[in-house]
Amino acid sequence: MQVKGFSAAAVEAGIRYKDRLDLGLIYSEIPAVAAGVFTTNRVKAAPVELSSIRLRQGRAQAILVNSGNANACSGKQGMEMAVATSALAAKALHIPEELVQVASTGVIGQQLDLACFERAIPGLADKLAADGFDDLSKAIMTTDTVPKLSFKTVMIEGTQVNILGMAKGAGMIMPNMATMLGFILTDARIVFPALRGILRKSVNQSFNRITIDGDTSTNDTLLILANGAAENPWIDDENPGGYKILEEAVIEICKELALKIVADGEGATKLATIRVIGARDKEDAEKGARTIATSSLVKTAFFGEDANWGRILAALGQSGCRFQQDRVDLFFDDVKLLENGAYLGADAEKQATEVMRQDKFTVTVELKNGSEEVEIHTSDLSLDYVKINADYRS
Amino acid sequence: MQVKGFSAAAVEAGIRYKDRLDLGLIYSEIPAVAAGVFTTNRVKAAPVELSSIRLRQGRAQAILVNSGNANACSGKQGMEMAVATSALAAKALHIPEELVQVASTGVIGQQLDLACFERAIPGLADKLAADGFDDLSKAIMTTDTVPKLSFKTVMIEGTQVNILGMAKGAGMIMPNMATMLGFILTDARIVFPALRGILRKSVNQSFNRITIDGDTSTNDTLLILANGAAENPWIDDENPGGYKILEEAVIEICKELALKIVADGEGATKLATIRVIGARDKEDAEKGARTIATSSLVKTAFFGEDANWGRILAALGQSGCRFQQDRVDLFFDDVKLLENGAYLGADAEKQATEVMRQDKFTVTVELKNGSEEVEIHTSDLSLDYVKINADYRS
Repeated sequence: MQVKGFSAAAVEAGIRYKDRLDLGLIYSEIPAVAAGVFTTNRVKAAPVELSSIRLRQGRAQAILVNSGNANACSGKQGMEMAVATSALAAKALHIPEELVQVASTGVIGQQLDLACFERAIPGLADKLAADGFDDLSKAIMTTDTVPKLSFKTVMIEGTQVNILGMAKGAGMIMPNMATMLGFILTDARIVFPALRGILRKSVNQSFNRITIDGDTSTNDTLLILANGAAENPWIDDENPGGYKILEEAVIEICKELALKIVADGEGATKLATIRVIGARDKEDAEKGARTIATSSLVKTAFFGEDANWGRILAALGQSGCRFQQDRVDLFFDDVKLLENGAYLGADAEKQATEVMRQDKFTVTVELKNGSEEVEIHTSDLSLDYVKINADYRS
Repeated sequence: MQVKGFSAAAVEAGIRYKDRLDLGLIYSEIPAVAAGVFTTNRVKAAPVELSSIRLRQGRAQAILVNSGNANACSGKQGMEMAVATSALAAKALHIPEELVQVASTGVIGQQLDLACFERAIPGLADKLAADGFDDLSKAIMTTDTVPKLSFKTVMIEGTQVNILGMAKGAGMIMPNMATMLGFILTDARIVFPALRGILRKSVNQSFNRITIDGDTSTNDTLLILANGAAENPWIDDENPGGYKILEEAVIEICKELALKIVADGEGATKLATIRVIGARDKEDAEKGARTIATSSLVKTAFFGEDANWGRILAALGQSGCRFQQDRVDLFFDDVKLLENGAYLGADAEKQATEVMRQDKFTVTVELKNGSEEVEIHTSDLSLDYVKINADYRS
């Protein structure tokens, strides 16, 4: 699980809790080509503001990440802290500040204590190791119950290229330590526009296809760094073969991480995939699948293992997706419960309920209105979700 | 609490449960001017389809309403049932079928048993009484815990005019007996366009300003009937004074009913009003208030009595509403917790938490970006909401 030229480390910096890995550092021996995707929330945390500006140069060499405090809604002082912590990392690594990306997750509205960083960063830099990513993936956890990593190796024109992804997420929104953070590292040699293209496509097919509670964090950050240490032939417009291979691997990694995030959603007991197929266009399919996947009533029914097709149909009906009710088929995995809008009876429902007893299942809504489809992954809405989110700050 | 010329009754028809009022009838001695507002869900229950078509004539004389079965997603047979039940009521009342409105709420996807209606309707018609509205308001309850009525008397040019409203609702969506139904009856004499205008404005200021779980039922129905029995001078374009007086009363009644619905929301322990003020335009204020009011994270924080301003700000940030974070003030009732985006500290938060301990409170977000404002009423997201909706069909 190593990527050439990259190392990582994590330490207990006491940012919010004691005896807990909460500060991590990722370092590339050589400046890497870098691209990122950040939250669309109008309220952006200071590290998001800083990192997105720095990333305009398309390069980065280190990522300093902390949990425990999101440094969000923290005003001018928050930005000063983001800059100051990145300067500490730059100094310890002997690299320019502009090549340091910062990311934070945790409670919001509180100021970071710079002293924690001053004490911890020198030791953190000393600890950097090629096998430090397990620790790092733990240091970024908040309400996550398991660390989330995904690793792949591909061959590009005879050269081995490694890709490692790690992420955290659990609910969706920060207040609750439930920001999504993701870092993808590869030793592939690739030009910036190609890397950015791969990241965008990957996000669209993975992290943008999941939902837990429909809220968007102020801190969401996904970064990809490619340092070229594999020395494969450059991936660019002239090498579409290499592009395809790398793209496929990054998409796979992002999908794996995204599914791990949903499965580890706050209080989640089910991982449900909502597929809307046979839609007139992509937008219809998207609206339908997303509205079903975020409906509180659908999600509580999943928690209750209740094959409540009525709630699914009603969510579809309010989504803006075009369909005719008397043409809709509905499946739980391969059990058909509705045919042309008509309920197939108690036996079918009994089988559908069996499907829902599983940890994972797929709800397929076939509209017979075209040929487009969209898939969204969601969790159930459980008693524990409410408990976690009603109590988290206490 | 009587409205001239109107009577009502309810009986136990055994539609889904025994020993429970579940079938109601409202009757006007003379055909009334009538207007309605129905669900915007693309999946519409049969009674909604039938009633909305019949209402195009602008007249109605009776409303047959049942709980226990929503007659939704019930196909062609569902529509036949809706027509057949209305025919039974028309026959018992000796009025044309076209003057009978039908409304249903309860489980979906099941066929109504016509036999229940055949047995019950003659007795129901015999039981009609001017004081039958208490019973009727009970017969339409599903997961509601209290019946919801509101009554007002106004003077229009020396003539007493009475207005009575009743409603049910509790979650938002039918599958589960949580459709919103509302009936407003008045003995005012008013022309159709004026009545329709009053209804639309009233709905916009009341039922469209509340949210429980953001879902839209297949059965939502709000009807207003004005039979003219008060014999006030006609309310029309020539009598704007009477129009204003009636409009104000209907708005008040709709607001009262809407607030009763939120306060009785499934599992609700809090009634929270979200006010976004100082917005650049109405649409901004609307987006902001509605996104805050429907955020699962904000609503679980209300349940947890946690003055979690970060979740509120983050919801605002993802709403599409235009604002600058460093200008936002945030209040819990009159306790200011944020000023120009900055947190005012632990003392202010302690006071805000005290505010949240109340059953009712108002969260005001002041954007200082203009002069428009919008208010939305919402409930909290509690453990009981999940319990009710995970289990309801069992």
